[in-house]
Amino acid sequence: MTIKNIAVILFSLLFTNQVFAQNKTVEASLGKTKIEVGLEADGTPYYLLNYGNKEVIKKSTLGIAFTEGDGFKNNLEIIGTEKKEVDSTWKPVWGEVNSIRDHYQELTVKLRQKGNKHLLMNIVFKAFKNGLGFRYEFPEQSGLKYFVVSDELTQFALTGDHKTFWIPGDYDTNEYKYSTTKLSEVDAWKVEKAATDIAVRVVPDQYAVQTPLMLKTADGLYINIHEAGLLGYPAMQLHVDRKKFVLSANLVANAVGSKAFLHAPFHTPWRTVIVSEDAKEILASKIILNLNEPSKIKETSWIKPMKFVGVWWEMQTGKSTWSYAETADSKDANGNLTPSGKHGANTANVKRYIDFAAANHIGGVLVEGWNYGWEDWFGNWKEFVFDFTKPYPDFNVQEIHDYAKSKGVQMIMHNETSGSATDYERQLDTAYKFMNKFGYPAVKTGYVGKIIPRGEHHDGQWMVEHYERVAEKAAQRHVMVDMHEPVRPTGLQRTYPNFMTSEAGRGNEYNAFSTGNPPEHETILPFTRLMGGPMDYTPGIFKLKGYADADPTRQVHTTLAKQLALYVTIYSPVQMVADIIDNYKPYMDAFEFIKEVPVDWDDTKIIEAEPGDYVTIARKGKATQNWFIGAVTDENARTATIPLNFLNPSQKYVATVYGDVKDADWKNNPEAYQISKYLVDAKTVLKLKLANGGGAAITLMPATGKEKGLKRFR
Amino acid sequence: MTIKNIAVILFSLLFTNQVFAQNKTVEASLGKTKIEVGLEADGTPYYLLNYGNKEVIKKSTLGIAFTEGDGFKNNLEIIGTEKKEVDSTWKPVWGEVNSIRDHYQELTVKLRQKGNKHLLMNIVFKAFKNGLGFRYEFPEQSGLKYFVVSDELTQFALTGDHKTFWIPGDYDTNEYKYSTTKLSEVDAWKVEKAATDIAVRVVPDQYAVQTPLMLKTADGLYINIHEAGLLGYPAMQLHVDRKKFVLSANLVANAVGSKAFLHAPFHTPWRTVIVSEDAKEILASKIILNLNEPSKIKETSWIKPMKFVGVWWEMQTGKSTWSYAETADSKDANGNLTPSGKHGANTANVKRYIDFAAANHIGGVLVEGWNYGWEDWFGNWKEFVFDFTKPYPDFNVQEIHDYAKSKGVQMIMHNETSGSATDYERQLDTAYKFMNKFGYPAVKTGYVGKIIPRGEHHDGQWMVEHYERVAEKAAQRHVMVDMHEPVRPTGLQRTYPNFMTSEAGRGNEYNAFSTGNPPEHETILPFTRLMGGPMDYTPGIFKLKGYADADPTRQVHTTLAKQLALYVTIYSPVQMVADIIDNYKPYMDAFEFIKEVPVDWDDTKIIEAEPGDYVTIARKGKATQNWFIGAVTDENARTATIPLNFLNPSQKYVATVYGDVKDADWKNNPEAYQISKYLVDAKTVLKLKLANGGGAAITLMPATGKEKGLKRFR
Repeated sequence: MTIKNIAVILFSLLFTNQVFAQNKTVEASLGKTKIEVGLEADGTPYYLLNYGNKEVIKKSTLGIAFTEGDGFKNNLEIIGTEKKEVDSTWKPVWGEVNSIRDHYQELTVKLRQKGNKHLLMNIVFKAFKNGLGFRYEFPEQSGLKYFVVSDELTQFALTGDHKTFWIPGDYDTNEYKYSTTKLSEVDAWKVEKAATDIAVRVVPDQYAVQTPLMLKTADGLYINIHEAGLLGYPAMQLHVDRKKFVLSANLVANAVGSKAFLHAPFHTPWRTVIVSEDAKEILASKIILNLNEPSKIKETSWIKPMKFVGVWWEMQTGKSTWSYAETADSKDANGNLTPSGKHGANTANVKRYIDFAAANHIGGVLVEGWNYGWEDWFGNWKEFVFDFTKPYPDFNVQEIHDYAKSKGVQMIMHNETSGSATDYERQLDTAYKFMNKFGYPAVKTGYVGKIIPRGEHHDGQWMVEHYERVAEKAAQRHVMVDMHEPVRPTGLQRTYPNFMTSEAGRGNEYNAFSTGNPPEHETILPFTRLMGGPMDYTPGIFKLKGYADADPTRQVHTTLAKQLALYVTIYSPVQMVADIIDNYKPYMDAFEFIKEVPVDWDDTKIIEAEPGDYVTIARKGKATQNWFIGAVTDENARTATIPLNFLNPSQKYVATVYGDVKDADWKNNPEAYQISKYLVDAKTVLKLKLANGGGAAITLMPATGKEKGLKRFR
Repeated sequence: MTIKNIAVILFSLLFTNQVFAQNKTVEASLGKTKIEVGLEADGTPYYLLNYGNKEVIKKSTLGIAFTEGDGFKNNLEIIGTEKKEVDSTWKPVWGEVNSIRDHYQELTVKLRQKGNKHLLMNIVFKAFKNGLGFRYEFPEQSGLKYFVVSDELTQFALTGDHKTFWIPGDYDTNEYKYSTTKLSEVDAWKVEKAATDIAVRVVPDQYAVQTPLMLKTADGLYINIHEAGLLGYPAMQLHVDRKKFVLSANLVANAVGSKAFLHAPFHTPWRTVIVSEDAKEILASKIILNLNEPSKIKETSWIKPMKFVGVWWEMQTGKSTWSYAETADSKDANGNLTPSGKHGANTANVKRYIDFAAANHIGGVLVEGWNYGWEDWFGNWKEFVFDFTKPYPDFNVQEIHDYAKSKGVQMIMHNETSGSATDYERQLDTAYKFMNKFGYPAVKTGYVGKIIPRGEHHDGQWMVEHYERVAEKAAQRHVMVDMHEPVRPTGLQRTYPNFMTSEAGRGNEYNAFSTGNPPEHETILPFTRLMGGPMDYTPGIFKLKGYADADPTRQVHTTLAKQLALYVTIYSPVQMVADIIDNYKPYMDAFEFIKEVPVDWDDTKIIEAEPGDYVTIARKGKATQNWFIGAVTDENARTATIPLNFLNPSQKYVATVYGDVKDADWKNNPEAYQISKYLVDAKTVLKLKLANGGGAAITLMPATGKEKGLKRFR
């Protein structure tokens, strides 16, 4: 977290405290990025974004409307501007790289309601090499204390009918498959209606889409729109004008129909546009992380990325249950639940997972279904569901704690709230004390169901504040958090580095209980969901067919090699090894990759990338010389071309390639992989055949010189 | 709490598990009370209530509608009935009497949706000597688990355009003055509009009134409609059909527009009708208490009624402030609040109150404004306002604790939530531990403002459940509770005897900060607000004019003698001695009554009563032979006639009468009282002149025989 090499150049301090000429615009720029900001004749603020000689965002409205009073909609005047350039680097606690450069030119535009000297708002822009961030700031002022936002007026006026990778603007879920259409073809309701595998869906606007939104223009420009540092404010979704190609901010509403209750001083999250002619630069961008605040946690030595197995996939596939009894009414004469015999979270079974983790260098074991409440937990919008300190009778928390400790394995807690955030908050303190007492260093939370407080939504202000409260409470108790079903991430892992990862998207689990994720899914996720932060996608399924008791024809839409590649292409510092442990036993040679792949990195290189088609990424393990590569493709086979020019040029490496066999494909032959070893160096260019829905995973370890019989890759 | 003398007579077990003849009605009766229940041709249930030869409730609809599915609206059949008589007595932990007879005939009508054997609901009626209670019960059943109530269909069809004492059916407040009109003249919006002294007012239905609703028929029948045992369900208000005189249940809505989220087995609160030709019997009725469940608290020795003074009226009248600094922005260079010099809750001032309490046998001292947050606490619907463990710098909680303890005085905690119930629940555990640590045996809570969770209301299901959670948590920590601004009470002090009292009405405080309460107010309260339970009305104001800094013309609308009488006529086991202690000093002879009056009683006699005109009550102090009488009148002077036939006939008593002087009146001469002593016995009939807005308070102590020069009352 140390800041090195700070270079702040204060360009100019223009027009402060005097009225700015209304017909002029002000600018910020860095490299090819150029932002212009001005006021319309009626005092409505606007901005434009150009990238090199290309228009990215045409003249677009800015502003915030209030439920009462003028707000900042129009009739504004510029009373000053400030500009500076900042170039610094900082070190994340964990991540894809060990050092991040934060270089931007900042422009602050100070606005005032005309005729009302007491109503002030600043809009702050940052021009980065590959895009921008801007946010609204309400400074401390006598004329504006508490206010309620009815609407954010931010627009992104696009230049044409771009190709778009989108999911509906749903207030409660991100768990959709991606649609790839032109902007003019966006229809959120059509998608929502078809998505019957998602339990709670609320899409008030037929033409709204979720962010991160990935776009590609006809002339090959890649544009990503999202937000950074979402705290104390609702999530921004985007309404699509299908004729004019203007995207307008759609804030998620609260229970009383407004958007945000605010108190000055306050600033909104940053609105981000990342742009490049090269898709790889989108994935490599650190704009969103850079726009987040530094860590609020001072002492971070207890925050440790880890892999984990879990008593979980067996529930997802129907082999065991979260619940202890068949139904809530399954009780004996004394009123105690009668066991169904199918309960997964029993002490003996958990010990098997602990043994497996210990034997295979997997740090953690997650156990779902360990606490009372699962017989009757979902779908009734009820407030009291789970007790987070009350294990089922067959889950001996002390015995499991002792056993795991003796094996050097850490238990991961599970707190499913069923959407009842009010009740989770009541129990937060005791729940986290319970984790401390029994040595749980991390918790996976869940919000499956409609939110309580009733009328609030997963992505609204109240819940955004709730997730932060959970992260804060967890930090106080030295607990790492993996949230399922929260709002999608916006880079907050910089500010709360114990907020390791989240789901907030359509995970691998849909392959277990539904029609699954199409092969292209994992080639779109990096450009959309993952732009905001790590995802607990739960890769590592090895039994790719015939695993689902409910439907034997169900299958995962990848090859086994692609499951390995996902450990590199989908970043998460807390990464699941998701399959039932018995399913790994026939493939322990392939499992070797999972044992070795890190969850924290010194460096990352995006090798190849095209949204919806393919992604190839190389990463260097933290504090090692080892590199790992993942390459994934969509439903089309392809050859991944991977120049190893990032390797240390004075070093030879042993490359172990876990690839699809020649006739592998996700549909008919998914578990057919081959493992090959080669001697390679920085001049090597790997060319690897990826099957339909396939992939490849590679380890690159410095050669010791003692390797025998290894051929060079040709 | 012991139950004595139980006599249960099981009358009959009719028609169980067979279909009841649809054209017949079933009955329950006791004394003059007669209930009939039947089904309309379309299967809609109804009931009627007669009292002697008088119709009280004409044929009136019963039923519960659901948001989904059939519910229990019509198309029902009776599949069985049960009847029994119960006659028992029980002892409250504290109260107006030390033993309560519970005598009723109970009728259970078992209903089923025709053609749906799996949808069952019972309606249980209890016929008491002076009225009825009935409720809906949803037994455990396979066909009905979770359900959402859209409407309760209960009606009370009255027989004419009765005189009515009412306040608007407001979702968030009971703090209105009472209107006395015919039913046909009810207009809640008109009253709501005029009530600008109440901060938060929400009256969705122009013709809805709050309960307890007091009615009087043209032929002199008194009718009171309310509910008992309100738990897990929204409050019932009543929609008035101004032409047909039918009152319909209006349940307070939740944030999503429905009424109640329920889970079978469940029963609604009891709907109550209390009826008599004698207004005194209405006040003496124990129907509402009897319909509540026995105490959930096993060990109750720590629950002790008490009187208390408080650093409070000085804030209400503008002499000091709750807040420590002028505004939230009043801060020094270090960001600390700068004291305004007007903060009431400072250690030195609190010690003065402790000294006064110790010197005058007042058990407790309440201090408001002791904790951070008051600079900016109201009106912004904000979630984080108060920290319930963080005293202002000039309030030394340890020093005050030690000082109070040394003087034998107990401190009463104050937790104002500003309506943010979510945040109070987050802090409940630490707040109550803090009370335990510093020896606070009781807490006054407050809910001034709009409720958070936003969209919920003070009187809705979520808050009803919240108040119960607070009472339960307080019971766990041995804390007594006095709630301000909760839903109006429904006899829950039987079930939670630590839930001592509440405001939930227009208290004496309105005389401090607003136009006040008219002289009739305290003659209506016993028939309305007080029917549900004790009220923290805060009597005992001695300085009746010229106390309000904001408006020197403001005055209390009673005489001083009436303020004394209120300690008897308005029952509360936790009773405030509300004035600034300095204001008592000129009148310490009158203060003697307050020192002596108990807050817990062995017996109570209603001597005279007419809603809106006068109330005279005599009570016998717990475990003593002392009686205390309070008599109050409205704006009209009158003579209270008080036969002392309740006294022990073999004993003479010294009566000390604190009465209005001849030319006293609330408007021009309120503080003019006289104290007279007489020798009296059971044959004495006191006749006391009460001034306009006046009253009289009397102590009756057994004579020792050594009294000299006391005359008999004539």
